[in-house]
Amino acid sequence: MVGGSITEKGVATRELILARAYELAREGGLESLSIGTVAISARMSKSGVFAHFGSREQLQLTLLDAVGARFLEFVKAPALREPRGLPRLRKLVERWCEWSRAHRNGCVLLSAAVEYDGRRDGALREHVLRQQAGWRDELRRAIGLAIDEGHLRNHTDTTQLAFEIYSLMLGLHHDAGLFGYEEARHRTEVAFERLLASYRPSAAEVCQ
Amino acid sequence: MVGGSITEKGVATRELILARAYELAREGGLESLSIGTVAISARMSKSGVFAHFGSREQLQLTLLDAVGARFLEFVKAPALREPRGLPRLRKLVERWCEWSRAHRNGCVLLSAAVEYDGRRDGALREHVLRQQAGWRDELRRAIGLAIDEGHLRNHTDTTQLAFEIYSLMLGLHHDAGLFGYEEARHRTEVAFERLLASYRPSAAEVCQ
Repeated sequence: MVGGSITEKGVATRELILARAYELAREGGLESLSIGTVAISARMSKSGVFAHFGSREQLQLTLLDAVGARFLEFVKAPALREPRGLPRLRKLVERWCEWSRAHRNGCVLLSAAVEYDGRRDGALREHVLRQQAGWRDELRRAIGLAIDEGHLRNHTDTTQLAFEIYSLMLGLHHDAGLFGYEEARHRTEVAFERLLASYRPSAAEVCQ
Repeated sequence: MVGGSITEKGVATRELILARAYELAREGGLESLSIGTVAISARMSKSGVFAHFGSREQLQLTLLDAVGARFLEFVKAPALREPRGLPRLRKLVERWCEWSRAHRNGCVLLSAAVEYDGRRDGALREHVLRQQAGWRDELRRAIGLAIDEGHLRNHTDTTQLAFEIYSLMLGLHHDAGLFGYEEARHRTEVAFERLLASYRPSAAEVCQ
């Protein structure tokens, strides 16, 4: 029983540390994190933070995983409740736009992609790469289902369309930070619908 | 004469400081700059750097202007030598892609847009905003000329298309850092041509 309650406390402390690290990383990126700054923010000793994460890198990796899981929960889970094809793809983009609204003052996932681009090697870059490639795969999968359902043209290049959608979401994030979210959201939605229209099945395909 | 040579030396020193600041900012962004780190990198005293720029903010603003001017020189100047319309717009995007290739390990202008988004106020944010809005205007102008020349559909929303092109360039920068430049460049070029095709004049417009 005592062991059980210690474990519960341990989980709560771990969550608290992660929450504090998350706030710091939203401001300054994962590279701004140190065991020391996180300890101060969580009102703990450095050795207390070490006891939970072992190293700065382990803390960064765990945080990246936690945010990635939160993103999928927020964006992908609601989309999976929509019918396959365009309804699901549209919901995915709609939820992604909402994620962008909620994180317009700093998204750890996006800044990680900048922090760990070609300049750096190591476990974090590998992790970011895997995470980004995984999300691109999810997008491709949703696009593939829309092709299967006959909502998008046969032979649509799923990698190409996934790149085009991803680019628009970068445009949303960028413009929202500079010129305001609502205007950027409107531009993004118009662009997304134009994009879908450009991949619509031809008349010949529809009449087959 | 002595005055002249002091001025020349002053200009050279100023350029040296800016060059060192630029290298530092490419790595860590404008916010990573301090008079102290720049002084160390330029092998000068802090008071020497102060004598040229007066404050950290003035150094950051001057650097931002210098990089912005270099960008326009690299991207816009060659485009202006092309005929108005699609040739000029295509050259603009081609040169922008080349800028992105040269700065794929860190572009001060792009990171400034992230550093001074909605989170911060002040002279630097104002400056970044003006710079970004100015570039968007340039894009709109090039698009407008392509409409005038009959290369793009009448009533093309120039702000919308400028956003769509800008988004693609963000996609290029993002994917180049993660998955490699050449693949990202190919995706960007395909997307740009698809985009232009979607704004092509209708048959009715062409036959008027």
